[in-house]
Amino acid sequence: MKPLGGLFCDLYELTMVAGYLKSGKNTQHAVFEYFFRRLPEHSGFAVFAGLDDLLDDLRDLRFSDTDIGYLESLGLFDTDTLHYFSDMRFQGDVWSAPEGMPVFPYEPVVAVRASLPQAQLIETLLLCRLNYQTLVATKASRVRIAASNDQVMEFGLRRAQGPDGGMSGTRAAIIGGCDSTSNTQAGKCFSVPVVGTQAHSWIMSFPSELDSFRAYANVFPEHLILLVDTYDTLNSGVPNAIRVFKELRERGWRGKPGIRLDSGDPAVLSIKAYQMLADAGFPDASIVVSSDLDEYVISDAKARGSKANVWGVGTRLMTGGFDPALTGVYKLAAIEDQGTWLSKFKISDSPEKTSDPGWLIPVRFTGENGFITCDVLFDAHDQSWKSGSVVAYDRLTLQPLCELPHTYHRSPTLAQVMQDGKRISQKAEVLDIRGFALEQITRIRPDMRDLHEPAAYTVALSAEVAEKKRSAINQYQRLP
Amino acid sequence: MKPLGGLFCDLYELTMVAGYLKSGKNTQHAVFEYFFRRLPEHSGFAVFAGLDDLLDDLRDLRFSDTDIGYLESLGLFDTDTLHYFSDMRFQGDVWSAPEGMPVFPYEPVVAVRASLPQAQLIETLLLCRLNYQTLVATKASRVRIAASNDQVMEFGLRRAQGPDGGMSGTRAAIIGGCDSTSNTQAGKCFSVPVVGTQAHSWIMSFPSELDSFRAYANVFPEHLILLVDTYDTLNSGVPNAIRVFKELRERGWRGKPGIRLDSGDPAVLSIKAYQMLADAGFPDASIVVSSDLDEYVISDAKARGSKANVWGVGTRLMTGGFDPALTGVYKLAAIEDQGTWLSKFKISDSPEKTSDPGWLIPVRFTGENGFITCDVLFDAHDQSWKSGSVVAYDRLTLQPLCELPHTYHRSPTLAQVMQDGKRISQKAEVLDIRGFALEQITRIRPDMRDLHEPAAYTVALSAEVAEKKRSAINQYQRLP
Repeated sequence: MKPLGGLFCDLYELTMVAGYLKSGKNTQHAVFEYFFRRLPEHSGFAVFAGLDDLLDDLRDLRFSDTDIGYLESLGLFDTDTLHYFSDMRFQGDVWSAPEGMPVFPYEPVVAVRASLPQAQLIETLLLCRLNYQTLVATKASRVRIAASNDQVMEFGLRRAQGPDGGMSGTRAAIIGGCDSTSNTQAGKCFSVPVVGTQAHSWIMSFPSELDSFRAYANVFPEHLILLVDTYDTLNSGVPNAIRVFKELRERGWRGKPGIRLDSGDPAVLSIKAYQMLADAGFPDASIVVSSDLDEYVISDAKARGSKANVWGVGTRLMTGGFDPALTGVYKLAAIEDQGTWLSKFKISDSPEKTSDPGWLIPVRFTGENGFITCDVLFDAHDQSWKSGSVVAYDRLTLQPLCELPHTYHRSPTLAQVMQDGKRISQKAEVLDIRGFALEQITRIRPDMRDLHEPAAYTVALSAEVAEKKRSAINQYQRLP
Repeated sequence: MKPLGGLFCDLYELTMVAGYLKSGKNTQHAVFEYFFRRLPEHSGFAVFAGLDDLLDDLRDLRFSDTDIGYLESLGLFDTDTLHYFSDMRFQGDVWSAPEGMPVFPYEPVVAVRASLPQAQLIETLLLCRLNYQTLVATKASRVRIAASNDQVMEFGLRRAQGPDGGMSGTRAAIIGGCDSTSNTQAGKCFSVPVVGTQAHSWIMSFPSELDSFRAYANVFPEHLILLVDTYDTLNSGVPNAIRVFKELRERGWRGKPGIRLDSGDPAVLSIKAYQMLADAGFPDASIVVSSDLDEYVISDAKARGSKANVWGVGTRLMTGGFDPALTGVYKLAAIEDQGTWLSKFKISDSPEKTSDPGWLIPVRFTGENGFITCDVLFDAHDQSWKSGSVVAYDRLTLQPLCELPHTYHRSPTLAQVMQDGKRISQKAEVLDIRGFALEQITRIRPDMRDLHEPAAYTVALSAEVAEKKRSAINQYQRLP
């Protein structure tokens, strides 16, 4: 990936920076937090992804000479501001959840501490890296749940926002639990398995389907997945595939036979195709199904006895499907004023309309059964979660919700990953992140992993944060 | 944009290429066509976009040494095939509709003629460039229709598939009719207007909303759009904005006042805010509305008397909204066999299941009223459309549909844009493409531009193509 220009931002971030400089706020430090308020539809959790790209972007952020020339041409910025951009290197600190971790609404997933202009400048870059990859990793983890132990291949490059969009999408899809991808560039860059079958145009470029199968078997006998739906799946495709498998077997072939169904009902067709393959002596054939799949289609097909054992998922994975955006936000949480950190949050007359106050760190509590129980938001400077029992307060009623006993394992979900603009965390391999994500998902209670009506996981407040929120609301209500 | 690696493809394209080489098909020429079968939901047309990026990609397509090393490591390709990739330069011919042209289901939008391996190799690259940009340009043109003569700003970078995905999205949004973008890099690269307002964090970084407005007015008095919904839109935001406008006016200010509403009902709030601004002597203030907008929300708000005159559209534009993928396909249409072109199409027992046969060129007929009337698909070698009356045949019944009189203007929608891998068309400026698209949309009959239940535009077959389809079906039905 090439280093990004500083212009990869919304213009208002640049005008805000200019405003901060002119208002004497250029050295004032601030903390911004990234979080989301709503999970993707029917999802009980999100799988965090996109951090690695973001950290590279932040490390490499520069305004080139032509960028500065362009900004000058807009007539909005004076010489001092242009110099500021020209000299800009991101020097902030970043705390983050690790990629692959399940995260939940209303809890900070990333916190950025930097000078007010620098923290502001990176808003859109951060959002565009994290929103999309988290959306796709979440979708992929749901597809993984639906597919159970079957193989899942990511096939979505053709629906991406250009080739680089596809790179982000494939990366996130693997993190969420796909086993492999058709995106060859992603295979190279991320060291993940690449897979492919056949195109309808291959089949059609030969005089007959049988000719096309034989020609393919001649070239790739060991990786033989034949696309059987070009003409007539059950009357032509599957019988021709079986014929070729038999011819190969007679010649001593030891490769693994496979077919791909790219249209039709994934349960009905796979059951019939399986029966034909089994009757012909190929009960172990791979049956790959693709075309308009998502977690719902896969779980429905499996419930109806589908014999598919490999699923190729493309469009609805790469786009997020029916809910194509994670609307994560990046909000000012605290600001430094003469050595003191002031909480910045929206205050109104009710807990619903009032934000959770201050720079907050989620602490995740795990019960004796190994399932995660509750995330409690503590003030970043409060270490009282480290031992003892902890009372969690409801974010809205501000009443005690439950007591988390001293025996519960607890750890903050965020750790520092960047200091003074330098990466201080290890760069993880995509397949290792995937392994972490798969392990983490098993820690979510099964009813919270349900694909249709998941139970809600609890994100709560510490006593101190709840009290701060209550007192802010009371003050607001006493205003004239 | 950096040149793309040849690995930006689905693996099966590489294995198909290997197969074609081994099957002696590497010099056989083929024509592939790009088309789609389904318009975005509720849309009567699509606006074609993405060609310019695609042509650059094709011109620059290369496999680097590390790409070849990676392919070798997969163990799938022999030395001859690796050499083929290593020497590969795209040398095909491309015909295409111009960007910005309205296009319709089942008609070729792009045709590629190249050696079978080369034509196959570029499938995914072509699809990922054209599907997404056409999706967004179409959505933008619908937003443009809904917004009528109001300004439309594209705000979607934060929901893009990474920064480069945002570049494609912004480009297409402008082509479809947006006036400006917040994406500063896109502003620079595509020479389109960039715009911005304020962030909530700007407002919150000051002791009070009024302080924040004054500070901003101090820096950018000429571009003063104040974000009024941070605390309480009608009781705090709008009154504070008016106060600042009055202070400025007392000091002789001649800038244009403006406010931005980023939450709440875009009709109700804009009407009330307008009344307050008008009562205070600012009836001409810009009223910018943003947050979860699309063509439906905008047209509904305008129907309810909204006083907004600028619309900031982000998420649902950048993602395509509820229908987030154009599922365009790239299909083999014809193949050369010893100097003769053979049509390649799926034949079945009914016109619904049978493709339109051969390498086809849509000819667009325009009536005396200036509206486009019908696109008729002619065999690429058939020039009979050039004069006289033309009978259009229904794609499914294969019966005559209408006679297009000799007075109707007619022209093919596709023109050659690449020859032997070299671009032969002028590279158009994005704003010029936008102008072309806006003009073209006026040629679509108003009932076909309806945002909810558009009438369908007709794509028909020439007599010759209809006869060829009928005869193929008849032959199929006579098969034993």
